[in-house]
Amino acid sequence: MKIVLLAGGVGGAKLAFGLSKILPPKDLTVVVNVGDDFTHLGLRICPDLDTVTYTLAGLDNRETGWGVAGDTFQALGALNKLDGPTWFRLGDRDLATHLWRTALLAQGLRLTEATSRICEALGVGPAVLPATDAAVPTRVVTDAGELDFQDYFVRRRCEPRVHRIVFRAIEAAAPTAEVLAAFQGADGIVFAPSNPFVSIEPVLALAGVRELIARKPAVAVSPIVGGEAIKGPAAKIMRELGLDVSPVGVAKRYADIIDGFLMDDVDAALAPAVQALGLEVRTAQSIMRTDADRESLARECLDLLAGLT
Amino acid sequence: MKIVLLAGGVGGAKLAFGLSKILPPKDLTVVVNVGDDFTHLGLRICPDLDTVTYTLAGLDNRETGWGVAGDTFQALGALNKLDGPTWFRLGDRDLATHLWRTALLAQGLRLTEATSRICEALGVGPAVLPATDAAVPTRVVTDAGELDFQDYFVRRRCEPRVHRIVFRAIEAAAPTAEVLAAFQGADGIVFAPSNPFVSIEPVLALAGVRELIARKPAVAVSPIVGGEAIKGPAAKIMRELGLDVSPVGVAKRYADIIDGFLMDDVDAALAPAVQALGLEVRTAQSIMRTDADRESLARECLDLLAGLT
Repeated sequence: MKIVLLAGGVGGAKLAFGLSKILPPKDLTVVVNVGDDFTHLGLRICPDLDTVTYTLAGLDNRETGWGVAGDTFQALGALNKLDGPTWFRLGDRDLATHLWRTALLAQGLRLTEATSRICEALGVGPAVLPATDAAVPTRVVTDAGELDFQDYFVRRRCEPRVHRIVFRAIEAAAPTAEVLAAFQGADGIVFAPSNPFVSIEPVLALAGVRELIARKPAVAVSPIVGGEAIKGPAAKIMRELGLDVSPVGVAKRYADIIDGFLMDDVDAALAPAVQALGLEVRTAQSIMRTDADRESLARECLDLLAGLT
Repeated sequence: MKIVLLAGGVGGAKLAFGLSKILPPKDLTVVVNVGDDFTHLGLRICPDLDTVTYTLAGLDNRETGWGVAGDTFQALGALNKLDGPTWFRLGDRDLATHLWRTALLAQGLRLTEATSRICEALGVGPAVLPATDAAVPTRVVTDAGELDFQDYFVRRRCEPRVHRIVFRAIEAAAPTAEVLAAFQGADGIVFAPSNPFVSIEPVLALAGVRELIARKPAVAVSPIVGGEAIKGPAAKIMRELGLDVSPVGVAKRYADIIDGFLMDDVDAALAPAVQALGLEVRTAQSIMRTDADRESLARECLDLLAGLT
């Protein structure tokens, strides 16, 4: 069963890890959001690609949810002494990834190719694909003005109130040939429990992606559990946009292109409202604290997908 | 007494340090070779500027002669795992300098301004000036072809036989306004015991520099002691170019624009040959192992200069 996982950062990376424990590498493709990508100190930084790659390579820092486990911060400390910017916490080993990716892109490689080179060197088996090779920076329109995503997310710690999320360059961007082929060849598609607005929808917004997914069995995992996001600003953004902060609110956003929805056991009472959207519903323990949790949730997703057909 | 020191890497940095212990910061300007500069992994790396800056800031690594004392190599280790290039040994703290310089240049600052910002942040008092803001890469024509300087010097460890040293872009390059002003305002000029071919001459080759120096009291310190270079490939290059590997050979290269020459006590027998070039000669213990050695050699240079007038 060939599976494509749509992933943002931490939630997507954990579910990718779980799926990678069940599926042979050739049967798993992770299509990753690049809307958070930015250039900082001349380095092309792809936070979601890195989180997925580090997690699949077993290098992820489980305490922070970003960066490399056991990384040091000597360069950042020296940058601080130089009065350089330190709001984006670059670890020393993490820096190597950004330096090498930037160098590979400067050599003319596509982001897809640079990512593949990095994954291969780190022994990552499943294909990790940026959703597009184009730059499609997500912008956040807030009380403090229109901000770059990392400015909003990291520097300002998601504090400004969000009015709108904008994908500025999305009309001109196309999914890569590799992404199109993965969707076309998929037996099932899984939406990770990632932020709908800033992780999943920048992928869905690429030309043709919604149509391709609509033709395939597809399930989504709710990133909202008990009225809060498992991690990150999804709940805060939903509230500020006046949306229903619940699995139902998330399911509505995907209902036209998915067939099944997986949400946490604590939200079981909401199952009828999701079923009313025409979706197959399953509840499970969906918070991934351990490797076993990751694999267990992955299995639930595959079971839900298998039961659809 | 306002002094301008012409410097390459380690020898120039040590003498700059010695002079900085004697002269008030406003009276010392170090004009630094940028012919060794190169771009690596997208980073603008200026080995001589960094060696001078780190040494004046007290951060220099005295064991290696390059980089920051106590630096770590986590990023380089991670780059190695990514199959990236590791022949240029970038320390983590050192990386911060290259990242920040590259970012400042990308913001539109001149190299002179970026260097000034870095020096200020590190508490370096004397002015440290790149000889030019232009890129003037030194090329080494060897048995193995025409090589970038760092390729010859670091990657190939100076092993290929040198036929010629070429300053490719030098005709189009000008010394900066700051460098011109420093020479014009100088009461004396000192050539550090740096490599004549790849450290001092790329500065002298800039338009107008020889003429400005010729008008001022100027002394040079021999980088050749007892028939060998104190450090680096100067002696090997001189041999391969068929030149006299001795203080006399060095003095001949500068004789038309300097007035005094300082060489090591061990070469005292060669003093008449240097005097025959029309130069005032002084011998001293010129190998700088300790801080006291650095200051002592600096004092010898200032005394020699003072005695000229």
